[in-house]
Amino acid sequence: MTTTPDLRQDHPTGTPVPPEVREAVLDVARRAGAAARVLATATRATKDAALHAMADALVASTAEIVEANAVDLERGRAAGTSAGLLDRLALTPDRVAAIAAALRELASLPDPVGEVVRGSTLPNGLRLRQVRVPLGVVGMIYEARPNVTVDAAGLALKSGNAAILRGGSAAAASNTVVVGVLREALRAAGLPADAVQSIDEHGRAGAVALMHARGLVDLLVPRGGADLIRTVVQEATVPVVETGTGNCHVYVDASADPAVALPIILNSKTQRVGVCNAAETLLVHRDAAATFLPPALAALHDAGVTLHGDDRTAAHAPEGVTVVPATEEDWATEYLSLDLAVRVVDSLEEAVDHIRAWSSGHTEAIVTADLAASETFVAQVDSAAVMVNASTRFTDGGEFGLGAEIGISTQKMHARGPMGLPELTTTKWVVHGDGQVRP
Amino acid sequence: MTTTPDLRQDHPTGTPVPPEVREAVLDVARRAGAAARVLATATRATKDAALHAMADALVASTAEIVEANAVDLERGRAAGTSAGLLDRLALTPDRVAAIAAALRELASLPDPVGEVVRGSTLPNGLRLRQVRVPLGVVGMIYEARPNVTVDAAGLALKSGNAAILRGGSAAAASNTVVVGVLREALRAAGLPADAVQSIDEHGRAGAVALMHARGLVDLLVPRGGADLIRTVVQEATVPVVETGTGNCHVYVDASADPAVALPIILNSKTQRVGVCNAAETLLVHRDAAATFLPPALAALHDAGVTLHGDDRTAAHAPEGVTVVPATEEDWATEYLSLDLAVRVVDSLEEAVDHIRAWSSGHTEAIVTADLAASETFVAQVDSAAVMVNASTRFTDGGEFGLGAEIGISTQKMHARGPMGLPELTTTKWVVHGDGQVRP
Repeated sequence: MTTTPDLRQDHPTGTPVPPEVREAVLDVARRAGAAARVLATATRATKDAALHAMADALVASTAEIVEANAVDLERGRAAGTSAGLLDRLALTPDRVAAIAAALRELASLPDPVGEVVRGSTLPNGLRLRQVRVPLGVVGMIYEARPNVTVDAAGLALKSGNAAILRGGSAAAASNTVVVGVLREALRAAGLPADAVQSIDEHGRAGAVALMHARGLVDLLVPRGGADLIRTVVQEATVPVVETGTGNCHVYVDASADPAVALPIILNSKTQRVGVCNAAETLLVHRDAAATFLPPALAALHDAGVTLHGDDRTAAHAPEGVTVVPATEEDWATEYLSLDLAVRVVDSLEEAVDHIRAWSSGHTEAIVTADLAASETFVAQVDSAAVMVNASTRFTDGGEFGLGAEIGISTQKMHARGPMGLPELTTTKWVVHGDGQVRP
Repeated sequence: MTTTPDLRQDHPTGTPVPPEVREAVLDVARRAGAAARVLATATRATKDAALHAMADALVASTAEIVEANAVDLERGRAAGTSAGLLDRLALTPDRVAAIAAALRELASLPDPVGEVVRGSTLPNGLRLRQVRVPLGVVGMIYEARPNVTVDAAGLALKSGNAAILRGGSAAAASNTVVVGVLREALRAAGLPADAVQSIDEHGRAGAVALMHARGLVDLLVPRGGADLIRTVVQEATVPVVETGTGNCHVYVDASADPAVALPIILNSKTQRVGVCNAAETLLVHRDAAATFLPPALAALHDAGVTLHGDDRTAAHAPEGVTVVPATEEDWATEYLSLDLAVRVVDSLEEAVDHIRAWSSGHTEAIVTADLAASETFVAQVDSAAVMVNASTRFTDGGEFGLGAEIGISTQKMHARGPMGLPELTTTKWVVHGDGQVRP
């Protein structure tokens, strides 16, 4: 009945799990655990060779992959899926090559496993090291884009983890072929094929069984829209990192230079719309409103942005620019579209309070020429990333120079902000002695 | 009806929460959040001065504290509480002084807040820093020992977090006085008294309400027995770090020097019995069994240890040493008493498999003279700490030289092993630009 890959349909809370699905998924998880034990001691050379083998195999299987993808696209078209979603789902030879290139890029990144985080020799002669080790088994539940399948498998492998993948049903045929290609490449490279497994065949019930596989799954990362993430966070009994919901704010301070502020809000809102680090609300200090808002509202309007504003914002709208009255709903919404909520605030403090009340804790930006204002904003805003005079769009593992990312954590535990390879590891204390006992 | 502070009674799953208790606890959490906002920007000097003020105030209130403690002790005695538990509950002037000294010790530790974890200048000129910041509001649910009240409050304050404390009902009178003294000292030091709050008055329902205060509590740390920890992990919807369950193993390898192995197992088992880093199972390679086990079993027996062994262990018991037949229950049990499970294994691999199957992931030790065996053990054992030729008892924040600890994490996410001040923080990405936008 649904015309788009609806995540609430794919991953509803309370989906019953038939015993045979539960057993099948637990069996997948156990095999992942056995593979993880091998991966944990695989050298960087072995893992990088496997990543290159996976890239080679994907390129060699381009025709087969594109053919399977055509089945998904045809099914999507028949179901009336939107052009935008079909585009995200589509694989061309160029896209397959780009996905393979991303694996080679991963191979070039340093291996987090084995890094000594801290170490010392204690007064009693014990040699202490805190060493990075893989988490073990990492689950990913994500949406239709088949490139995530390869990304997630590669990131997990490079960080020494076995991956259990649950992709969106809309990409089922593509993912089946891709996972088969990756597994064959792993086997050929001398690593266990079970380092990468898919549970797509078990549908929604399989996803729920994965969320409940406590003791067998060390980390579950949901990657997708707000509904998917909420469902996984609420339903999972395995450890989850909450990613990617971005109700991001740009605050234009009283002292802001309009020539700096205008490009930043335009870029934050319109450079790419459907992503978590796009801005959704603009807050403007009342002292900046009269000079900044008229040209800013006009420029945003010209860029196709629908403006949702409070009364004071509307009062500054130039002729021909409509401002839809904003409600609390607008402050709370991650539009992921060419919509922007706009509010005039009386002070920096009011801006911070607004952000603390409504933000999802992803990224907030201040545009200011006032040093003290920038420092207060940085100190008081409680989000994963705080930008001073820069676009919110920079919160990204690649932009930060961290290499690939598996998602952007909006929680405070374990990882916050872009999650790269080190965030897919834990640590182990290794202590060497010569017979020491506690007195 | 219960004669000891029973944790299942104190913290049962499914306890109904009356709306007025829920509201009262949420109000406590909101006030903690407001206090946390102040603490987040308090300087180290301010926080250390407050720690010293708290220590001074505790010492100055010794008589009042000991008097309140006498009420708890009297109630405990009347209820038939064991001598051991009464001793853990008891506060003397010397103990109050020691608790105050621990606060001064905390003041001497470096402040984790503000530490720059990573940083770089990006090609586009953005200045990037990943900075440690407080988590915000930290809840602690713990057992009867009133020193934990002060410890937890001090650790939270030093790391810039507001603390919400729920102590065991057996220490209610002591905790009420102690929390009152700490709050008064905070106020006098110019920090919000709500940086330390108790919800003891709301009983079990209050503890459950705290576990459910999602969005208002950034971290909940259960500290106590396995039942308490299990209840909190199962019931909480706020982020939890699982601490302290220690089913620890000592493995005596074929190559072990008995003169090294014997002191290590004796120390690991008997140096202190009721603690999470005490050993609960001894695994012995079959090639070491004939020489090692007879004197080891005799020495353990002489130290008052009840031995639970498999058949091959029993076969090596010297005359007069009883070995109770061990069952799977013994492999699974954290005795926390003078009991030890003993098993003979055929190989290092079998030892590792046993540990991976039964361990709680706290601490395991190998005694060996074989370098390759030590390396395999370190690589294959999946626990927070792995000891080579040293007692399991060393897994401790103080012993590791990390300063005070709030608990020992047995999970892989966020923190693993002893949790000190840095583990009570998260990070924030702070990015400074000059108007940069994404091309």
